[in-house]
Amino acid sequence: MKVHLRRVWASLLAASVLSFGMRAPAQTDPLPAWKESPSKQAIVDFVKATTDASSPDFVPPAERIATFDNDGTLWVEHPMYTQLAFALDRVKELAPQHPEWKTKQPFQAVLDDDMKALAAAGEKGIAELVMASHAGMTTTAFEMIVKDWLAKARDPRFKRPYTELTYQPMVEVLAYLRANGFKTYIVSGGGIEFMRPMTEAVYGIPPEQVVGSTIKTQYEIQDGKPALMRLPEIDFIDDKTGKPIAIDKFIGRRPIAAFGNSGGDLQMLEWTGAAGGRRLMMLVLHDDAKREYAYGPANGLPDTPFGAFPQSLMDQAKKSGWVVISMKDEWKRVFAFEPAK
Amino acid sequence: MKVHLRRVWASLLAASVLSFGMRAPAQTDPLPAWKESPSKQAIVDFVKATTDASSPDFVPPAERIATFDNDGTLWVEHPMYTQLAFALDRVKELAPQHPEWKTKQPFQAVLDDDMKALAAAGEKGIAELVMASHAGMTTTAFEMIVKDWLAKARDPRFKRPYTELTYQPMVEVLAYLRANGFKTYIVSGGGIEFMRPMTEAVYGIPPEQVVGSTIKTQYEIQDGKPALMRLPEIDFIDDKTGKPIAIDKFIGRRPIAAFGNSGGDLQMLEWTGAAGGRRLMMLVLHDDAKREYAYGPANGLPDTPFGAFPQSLMDQAKKSGWVVISMKDEWKRVFAFEPAK
Repeated sequence: MKVHLRRVWASLLAASVLSFGMRAPAQTDPLPAWKESPSKQAIVDFVKATTDASSPDFVPPAERIATFDNDGTLWVEHPMYTQLAFALDRVKELAPQHPEWKTKQPFQAVLDDDMKALAAAGEKGIAELVMASHAGMTTTAFEMIVKDWLAKARDPRFKRPYTELTYQPMVEVLAYLRANGFKTYIVSGGGIEFMRPMTEAVYGIPPEQVVGSTIKTQYEIQDGKPALMRLPEIDFIDDKTGKPIAIDKFIGRRPIAAFGNSGGDLQMLEWTGAAGGRRLMMLVLHDDAKREYAYGPANGLPDTPFGAFPQSLMDQAKKSGWVVISMKDEWKRVFAFEPAK
Repeated sequence: MKVHLRRVWASLLAASVLSFGMRAPAQTDPLPAWKESPSKQAIVDFVKATTDASSPDFVPPAERIATFDNDGTLWVEHPMYTQLAFALDRVKELAPQHPEWKTKQPFQAVLDDDMKALAAAGEKGIAELVMASHAGMTTTAFEMIVKDWLAKARDPRFKRPYTELTYQPMVEVLAYLRANGFKTYIVSGGGIEFMRPMTEAVYGIPPEQVVGSTIKTQYEIQDGKPALMRLPEIDFIDDKTGKPIAIDKFIGRRPIAAFGNSGGDLQMLEWTGAAGGRRLMMLVLHDDAKREYAYGPANGLPDTPFGAFPQSLMDQAKKSGWVVISMKDEWKRVFAFEPAK
């Protein structure tokens, strides 16, 4: 075998780079999708203060709990929650078995793509759609249904799987916190079993660190084997005051960092901030109509039925020292698929 | 500086021992409180089979979930659950503020130490005692009450803090599983907020890995600060079919190993065993009247109001290949404070 000198040099060089890299890793930016901005600085300062053993704000690793809302905080929630898009698709798929839906609201609105009639059906209507689409099967069957849908469904504007519509800067925050000994949790109003099939792959968050809304389940023996059947009955809504309640129930510790984007996250941030000590509370402001969306009263825009940033939340943030993240001004890019600005 | 040859030799020897130790740690027994017995062998075989990457039964670390009942499985539940002892003490402590309890059951039974009248009050009576003793304060206040009680209360027979009445062989199993990449969870009928103040110190299990029964809480602003008030209303009973339901809700994965000791654990073991693949289901049999207690129909003894091992569970164990642990025959010692046999 002939050995080329250039190849030997190249491999020696590669080995030395590798070995240098292993001994003293270069200080790479853990948050490359962020511009040098106040929010980025706040995150880095907080992590340094709480993880440096000589800092007065040091927090032992076991207590480094960070909670994240999902819709609008980690991935796109506009023009409707992904889970609602799932429910609508599912109603259409099940429609042949339910001829009565053709003339029964809110199902008729879904089948006719009549968003106005759907909005008119209100929360009660949405709940009916969720029950019809999320219950009546085993937990195992539902997981498969969600996985199949996530694999094939596409967002109408971005023409991509919903799982690609995660905010790259926030995915970086999750990884940065975990690299510094934090345990990252999702605490979302979304359905717990709708999120769990994707959170590990998309956010690096395992199922046991996903807290969300639940419907009741029932333990049954089917053909000699146990199964958990999903019942058309709400168990718990993990939103607003439900968030601190669920955090206390599922985690049993108070977070030291919390991230949200809507009025539904107010109590989670309030609860996180109230215990004293160094804390980080952040809110994602949707002010980027070009790359994502701009909506909500805090942008001088009307409120939306599905997700908003009300002016009252902005006022509370100012009063409480919560950090508001401007997507437009602070993020180099919103999505991983989008080239850096 | 004078250098003694002996000291040099000693330090060289120490360094070589250290370096040998780091390369090939001595095979110490991870389960020293266990006799060489079928149950010990079953545990060791299971761990080897599921953690050896070349084994057909290999399970990736993320899926190595093990769930443990608490009362009667990890610590003493006889003659009454520790949490009930807490409730009775608490009722006595609160009695001066409730003069009406003197003539009102089940409170009168508690104040008169009338165990017969207490048993006659049944589950409804117990629920009343739990509500009177476990609700009406913030979660933070309740945690302090539990911690204070655990520090000062003593078991009447063993004259020791209840937290010393944990089964040393089971504490070893917890540590052995964790050392092999398992995540250990408590899944108990006991109150989640009664257990969390002690599980980290006693079992090495952090609060977020404790699943149990819950009462409802309410988010309130008190003197300008948020608080979670404990309401006198059952939220969820984590027993029998409630155990797989709670496992699915809190953990979102099916365990591959489950440990219990009563009819309340049947469905947890059934659920664990039903998914296929190598699984370990174990039951602690209380057959050691001398060192601990012997009770329940499976010992030919009458059923007890608080915890038992019914014959039907023994029959199910035989049918399903669940491993029954004989405390009397398989444990060298039951408690850490007891010398090895």
